[in-house]
Amino acid sequence: MAKIALGLDFGTLSVRALAVDVSDGSERGAASFAYPHGVMDKELATPSGEKIPLPPNWALQSPRDYLDALSAVVPAVLSDAGAGPADVVGIAADFTTCTLLPTDESGTPLCFDPRFENDPHAWVKLWKHHAAQPYADRINEIAAERGEAWLERYGGKVSSEWMFPKILETLTESPAVYGAAYTFLDAADWIAWILTGNLARNSCIAGYKALYCGSYPPEDFFAALDERLCHVVRDKLAGPVLPVGSRAGGLTEEGARLTGLLPGTPVAVGHTDAHVAAPALGITKPGEMLALVGTSTTMLVTAAEYRPVPGVCGIVKDGILPGLWGYEAGLGCVGDAFGWFADNCVSPDLVREADRRGVPVIALLTEKIGALSPGESGVLALNWWNGNRNPLGDGDLSGMLLGLTLGTTSVGMFRALVESTAFGMRLIIENLREHGVPVDRFTASGGIPFKAPEIMQIYADALGMEIGIAGTKEGPAKGSAVYAAAAAGLDRGGYSSLSEAAERMGAKPLKAYLPDPSKREAYDALYREYLRLVAYFGRGGNGVMKRLLSMKKAAKRT
Amino acid sequence: MAKIALGLDFGTLSVRALAVDVSDGSERGAASFAYPHGVMDKELATPSGEKIPLPPNWALQSPRDYLDALSAVVPAVLSDAGAGPADVVGIAADFTTCTLLPTDESGTPLCFDPRFENDPHAWVKLWKHHAAQPYADRINEIAAERGEAWLERYGGKVSSEWMFPKILETLTESPAVYGAAYTFLDAADWIAWILTGNLARNSCIAGYKALYCGSYPPEDFFAALDERLCHVVRDKLAGPVLPVGSRAGGLTEEGARLTGLLPGTPVAVGHTDAHVAAPALGITKPGEMLALVGTSTTMLVTAAEYRPVPGVCGIVKDGILPGLWGYEAGLGCVGDAFGWFADNCVSPDLVREADRRGVPVIALLTEKIGALSPGESGVLALNWWNGNRNPLGDGDLSGMLLGLTLGTTSVGMFRALVESTAFGMRLIIENLREHGVPVDRFTASGGIPFKAPEIMQIYADALGMEIGIAGTKEGPAKGSAVYAAAAAGLDRGGYSSLSEAAERMGAKPLKAYLPDPSKREAYDALYREYLRLVAYFGRGGNGVMKRLLSMKKAAKRT
Repeated sequence: MAKIALGLDFGTLSVRALAVDVSDGSERGAASFAYPHGVMDKELATPSGEKIPLPPNWALQSPRDYLDALSAVVPAVLSDAGAGPADVVGIAADFTTCTLLPTDESGTPLCFDPRFENDPHAWVKLWKHHAAQPYADRINEIAAERGEAWLERYGGKVSSEWMFPKILETLTESPAVYGAAYTFLDAADWIAWILTGNLARNSCIAGYKALYCGSYPPEDFFAALDERLCHVVRDKLAGPVLPVGSRAGGLTEEGARLTGLLPGTPVAVGHTDAHVAAPALGITKPGEMLALVGTSTTMLVTAAEYRPVPGVCGIVKDGILPGLWGYEAGLGCVGDAFGWFADNCVSPDLVREADRRGVPVIALLTEKIGALSPGESGVLALNWWNGNRNPLGDGDLSGMLLGLTLGTTSVGMFRALVESTAFGMRLIIENLREHGVPVDRFTASGGIPFKAPEIMQIYADALGMEIGIAGTKEGPAKGSAVYAAAAAGLDRGGYSSLSEAAERMGAKPLKAYLPDPSKREAYDALYREYLRLVAYFGRGGNGVMKRLLSMKKAAKRT
Repeated sequence: MAKIALGLDFGTLSVRALAVDVSDGSERGAASFAYPHGVMDKELATPSGEKIPLPPNWALQSPRDYLDALSAVVPAVLSDAGAGPADVVGIAADFTTCTLLPTDESGTPLCFDPRFENDPHAWVKLWKHHAAQPYADRINEIAAERGEAWLERYGGKVSSEWMFPKILETLTESPAVYGAAYTFLDAADWIAWILTGNLARNSCIAGYKALYCGSYPPEDFFAALDERLCHVVRDKLAGPVLPVGSRAGGLTEEGARLTGLLPGTPVAVGHTDAHVAAPALGITKPGEMLALVGTSTTMLVTAAEYRPVPGVCGIVKDGILPGLWGYEAGLGCVGDAFGWFADNCVSPDLVREADRRGVPVIALLTEKIGALSPGESGVLALNWWNGNRNPLGDGDLSGMLLGLTLGTTSVGMFRALVESTAFGMRLIIENLREHGVPVDRFTASGGIPFKAPEIMQIYADALGMEIGIAGTKEGPAKGSAVYAAAAAGLDRGGYSSLSEAAERMGAKPLKAYLPDPSKREAYDALYREYLRLVAYFGRGGNGVMKRLLSMKKAAKRT
């Protein structure tokens, strides 16, 4: 029987498990499990059956669902692969992040304690729990005032989705939960703890979501936020930070009972669901960019050296691949903007054609943009429908369509919108390069690359780069399997290093989109126009977008 | 029986005739007649039955249609009014302009001459015949080089629709027709000539379309265009220029036979179909603006004095009302842009709702924008879908939508587009005021004011002016009737002056939209943002719109 590495991808609504052949990376089995409680964003369902209403912007999960998922999905994926526990060389889990929970000293979530089960702060705060925004604002304000050195690694801004805004929210709104917590940790690290009995934190999440870079921010910074937070690192963040690709430990008896695997089976430290995919897609070296193109676009690349690049989301040692500096940046709104366009900005004829043919409007739009050449529509867009994440880090910017005439079509406008997301990526890549971070290869994964060849061709042409499409749609779960094989090590039937595991198990690109040199000049000209508008509207030339936003807010209040 | 004044409005596709009671302006009868040959823009249908293909941008008409119209519509409108020829105190005709034809010395169109009937240049070049653009370009170039003084009265630009580009086109492309022409004249003046036997030109068309202001441009200017054009005024523009409101003469025997009216019936000089409407809507004084809001918007106002206002279409003595300086400006694209929006830029849900309710998409959009307050959508537009006619006089500018987010709706965008046309009008009005031309009252006519109260309320609020809606939809034909009554004079049962005729026969506003003071501040803020973008995109800050247009043209060529 083949040796199997198990990868578990804990998503927002379900877990996806993959049994991967260690010898060649072939996918031998798959299984999935939907969380019974899903995302609790209207009300909290407590074990006693009580329903507690939640304020706006809350998003909770139940750790019970994660345990149930482990028990269900591991046996199921082995069965699907026709394999047994003895065939498993290792297991690893990746997770949405920062998805944070407080536990007691034994690793039991505080929400399992009847004293706290009715307190929403005792539950898992999902990555998209946005109620901590005021606390993020305060963190950003104090950090900027104090000139905190770590701030430059995060593009000058801490997101409300990250760890410390969520902890500060708990301290402020539920001091009892804060006091009772032995530790706060990401669900990815909690899973590894539950399975191995070892409390550790992985370098990716610690770096990108908990401001860790060799150490956390200093105590006097936390004290400036709130005196009670002064010793948060010493008191509430127990456990060493280990590089991704490390082994967290072997399965305990309890971990073995939970999963049906053998005690001692190697378990890797956790990882982030996006970043974990790199080695599964053959990405192991500096300068190889992975772009996850979906509702938003996340762009990841590594370098051997630290370079202070302004206008990125995070620069983290061991953040993407072990031994390298990981650089993360992205566009806040891509598929979301395409969806908005199809829902708000099309010709009635196109709607009727889509209805007649029984295809979604967005599919028809995507099909039709391929027939235009760059510049032919005469339209140029700024892709800021949800602000600009990078490099400007300004959520108050907004989108623009320019060059509209009586001959403009919705297809022409949609193409301009797609092109503007390409220019947004190009701006991020050129910003990295200008600051000494090479970007030599480009691999695309996520939802859009697999279903919109017209968009991928535009991306290749507008970036002037070959775009390889990920060789598997199972990037995260397969990435975890690669990490599991690396964590197992050579002596347990795995590999001696992550790069070796990636080389043997990683998928070759499914297909490549080559840039068309005949379109280079037109795209360069459009990109120059884009840059000029970025400078004008985004870098202080004209603050009209912010003033319109203020007026909009004022109008909605009255 | 009531005394009747007859007004004939020669439009692009048909003539509209109105029999108006001289005593109180009531509309006693109406009739219309569609031109059998319509607009010939693909091929010329000659009397011999031959079909001659026309190049792009040509638009011809047959003067035979105008004669047939006269014979048909005058008896019909009298019959509809229950009146006879003896009841008619006077008749007047207005026309689309510059709609130009060459005739022989008797007034017979050259296209009636079998020697020229196959030559397209011998026919009527309709106002929207745009093939003379290269000749307009040449006129503008030479006039600017020579620093011609008259140029400032036309915003620095002669349109291809005007008289001299069309004449220069004929001279260049058909010297035989040019040579054989006794004169070139507008169809409005030709009608008066046919009816009265007197060749004269009206001050409105001479001023706005033939560069006349006391005199035509000097001979050395014409010689600089083409040596053969040196004496064009002396040789080809016979007949005095008479102020609008003048009597051209009485009906000849032939004119009486043609119309069924009595010989000697007073005939007014011609007028332009837009400008003629003013007195029918009670507009007789300086500072009273008439805006014809339709596919485009024409804005007319008079002043006692000449003021050199930059960025208008024309400043003409006796151009709108006799005895006053007429100022004309406008927006090149209003209803056209609204129609474009409904055809290209809406949500599928709105399309389906419109289909279900059986109403046009544009009607639904218009209905829904009334529910928003200014600034609430967060969207700001530049209304340049067909360039900017005034004050920038730049056809290469294009439209823009800014402030788009994932929450933006098509209704919000449409409201921003409507608001931007209001700001475009406000810019024209403020430009006039800043240069010493007061604008104190605002009356709206055209298609949109009668059917879109939501848009009119936005206009009143954004301009901060009361907007009176024209008291009749028959502004042009009724305006001609007022001029007919004035031309008749007191002794023939008419009035001693145009203002007296207008006072008795003009229609009171149908309704008034009052500006809402609570919205003033928001509109002022939006308008300031609009002005800033006008300066940036329209006045040299960033020529991106022109560069996008060049790229579009280049892409279409390849």
